[in-house]
Amino acid sequence: MRNLITDVPGVLVGNAQDRRAATGVTVALFEQSTVASVATLGGAPGSRAVTLLEPEMTRGMIDAVVLSGGSLFGLDAAGGATAVLVSQKRGAMFGGITLPVAVQAILFDLVNGGEKDWIKQPMTHKPPYWDLGRDAALAASAEFALGTAGAGVGATTVNLKGGLGSASMRTQQGFTVGALAAVNAVGSATIGDGPQFWAAAYEQGSEFGGLGWPTRVPAEALAIRFKGQPAPVTATTIALVATDAKLSKAECKRLAIMANDGLARALRPVHAPNDGDTVFAAATGHAGPGGEPPVLTELGAAAADCLARAVARGVYEATALPYAKALPDWRSKFGRQ
Amino acid sequence: MRNLITDVPGVLVGNAQDRRAATGVTVALFEQSTVASVATLGGAPGSRAVTLLEPEMTRGMIDAVVLSGGSLFGLDAAGGATAVLVSQKRGAMFGGITLPVAVQAILFDLVNGGEKDWIKQPMTHKPPYWDLGRDAALAASAEFALGTAGAGVGATTVNLKGGLGSASMRTQQGFTVGALAAVNAVGSATIGDGPQFWAAAYEQGSEFGGLGWPTRVPAEALAIRFKGQPAPVTATTIALVATDAKLSKAECKRLAIMANDGLARALRPVHAPNDGDTVFAAATGHAGPGGEPPVLTELGAAAADCLARAVARGVYEATALPYAKALPDWRSKFGRQ
Repeated sequence: MRNLITDVPGVLVGNAQDRRAATGVTVALFEQSTVASVATLGGAPGSRAVTLLEPEMTRGMIDAVVLSGGSLFGLDAAGGATAVLVSQKRGAMFGGITLPVAVQAILFDLVNGGEKDWIKQPMTHKPPYWDLGRDAALAASAEFALGTAGAGVGATTVNLKGGLGSASMRTQQGFTVGALAAVNAVGSATIGDGPQFWAAAYEQGSEFGGLGWPTRVPAEALAIRFKGQPAPVTATTIALVATDAKLSKAECKRLAIMANDGLARALRPVHAPNDGDTVFAAATGHAGPGGEPPVLTELGAAAADCLARAVARGVYEATALPYAKALPDWRSKFGRQ
Repeated sequence: MRNLITDVPGVLVGNAQDRRAATGVTVALFEQSTVASVATLGGAPGSRAVTLLEPEMTRGMIDAVVLSGGSLFGLDAAGGATAVLVSQKRGAMFGGITLPVAVQAILFDLVNGGEKDWIKQPMTHKPPYWDLGRDAALAASAEFALGTAGAGVGATTVNLKGGLGSASMRTQQGFTVGALAAVNAVGSATIGDGPQFWAAAYEQGSEFGGLGWPTRVPAEALAIRFKGQPAPVTATTIALVATDAKLSKAECKRLAIMANDGLARALRPVHAPNDGDTVFAAATGHAGPGGEPPVLTELGAAAADCLARAVARGVYEATALPYAKALPDWRSKFGRQ
C-alpha cells in the first residue's frame, strides 16, 4: 500500500503545474471506464460534465476525473485530458466514435500571487488549463506527488498553505478505498493556531505528523475563521474517492455523499456559500459487489475516513508559495514532526 | 420585434462555425450580469458550470450562455467566450478579479460527415471549440443567422436537417419573452413524412411555413422514430429562454422547467435516455417583477410557446450539409412555402 488513491487497482493519477501562474491540474485516470457519481455540497461549485453523473442520467461510465485550479477558467482542463483519452482509444462507442468522459471540478486560486496573464491580457493569452489537463493525463501513474503539486499548487486554507492530499485503506470486508483531495478550503484543517489537525482521530501512523487531538479545545480555537472576511472570495475543496467494489451509479452517489462527511470532520467550516466543495465517487468493480446497505455503509465510512486523512495530508505535505504575502506551510510553521 | 431572442432587451447572440468540421457555437451574451437557472430533462447531457445554477447554490448571476456542437469536446467553448467577457471587464468581483460566468450545454454532431480532425489525430489537433466560443462571443449582436448557423451547423433531427431557431413574443402583462434553440433532436419536429410541424398550433404568421396542423394524424405518422435504432447515438436539443421580467434563481428554474414543455410539444420523442436536452432560463429584470405565481405561469407558458416555435424555425430555416448521406432540409424536401 502506497497510502495513495492509486492503491485502488486501475486508478492512476498525474499532475501538471504552471509554477509562474501558481496553479495546476491533477487528473485521475481509470484504466477501464468506471461507474461514478458526484455530490456537490459546497455553495459555489464550478464543474464540467457532471450533470451526466446524476443517477437519473443514462451515461454511467467515466474515464477520468480532473481536479483543477483556475476557477471557471480551469474548466478547459478536461478538454486536454480528453484528447489524451481519445489517443488511447478510451471510452464508449457512439456512432462509430469512441467518446471518453472526463468530468471535472475546479478550485479558486486566482488571487494567490501567481501571474495570471490570461486575466490581464485575455485576447492574446489563453489560459494554460487545456494544456495542463493534457500534460497531467499524460503523466498519470501509480506514483504522484502530494502537497504543492497539481491542483494543489495554488491551493490555500484560511491559515496555512493547502495542497494535494491522498490516503487509502482496506476495509474489513477486503475492499480497497482511496481518496484524493485538492485542499483549498474556506476554513481551516488545523485546530486554532496549533499544529493539530481536526482529522487527527482518523490518522494512520504519522501520516500527517502523529500529534493526535488536544484533550480540550480552547474557546479561542473554536472562533470561526474563514476566507473572505469581509471581501468575498471563493474557496473549494475538490476530491475523488474510489473503491474496487462494484457499485451502481446511485450507490456511487451515496458513497460521494458519505465521503463529504470526511470533509466535515477535517475542515471547519466547510460546505459554505462561497465554497464549491465537490466530491466524486468512482467504483472500479474489480473486487466484487459492494452495494448492499451494510457493505456500502462500511465503504462510505471508509471513504469519509480516507478523505479526512487526504485533506490533512494535503496541508501537511504542502510547501508555501514563493511570494511575500503567501500563507506559511504547516512544516515551516510547526517544524517537521 | 425581430422574432428573435434578442428582442429581450440586453440579450445579444453571436454565431461561429467550422464548416469543414460541420460544427459550430452560438453564444448568448447578456449586456449585464443576469439571474439564470437550468432544467436538464434529457438523459445524456453534457454541460459546463451548470451546477452553480441550482437554486441552493450561491452564485446567482451569469454573463453568457454557450450552446455548442462537439459533444464533450465542445465544452471548451465556454473558455473562449469567457476570455471575451474578461476583456470586456464583465462579471462579479472576487478577490479583486472580475470573474464572468459562461454556462454551457453541448449537442452531439460528431458523426454528421464533417472532418473531426481532433478525433483522428488528438495529440496534434486541438478541437476548434475554444476559438469558436471566442469568435461567437465577439460576434454577439441583435441580429444573427438561423438554420445552419452556429451551434445549428451540425445539428440534425431523425428525418431532416436540424438547426438554430429563435422566436419571441410579448405577454399580456407586457413582458418580452424569447427563445433560442439548437435543434439536434433524437426525434422529429415534423408529423410523419409530411411538411407540417408538431409546433404548428403556436406558429405566429408563417414563421415556419404556415401549414397548420392536419385535422387527423394517420397511424403511420404516429410510429415512433428516433436516432440510434439500433446502434446507440446521442442527440440533444439545447436551448435558452429569456425574459425581461425580474425573477429569482428559483423562479428561473421554474421558467426553465415550464419551457421544456415547449420541447415536448415541438419534438417527438424528446427527453430520451440518449438525449441531453438542456434548457437554460435567464431573467434580465428590466421590466419589473415576474415571480408571483400567476405572472410566472404566464411567463412559463410564453417561454414554452416561444421554445416550441424556435424549434420549428430551426428546422424550417436549415440548409442541408454538403455530404452525400446528409439528411435533407425542410425546404428542399417540401419546397419554400
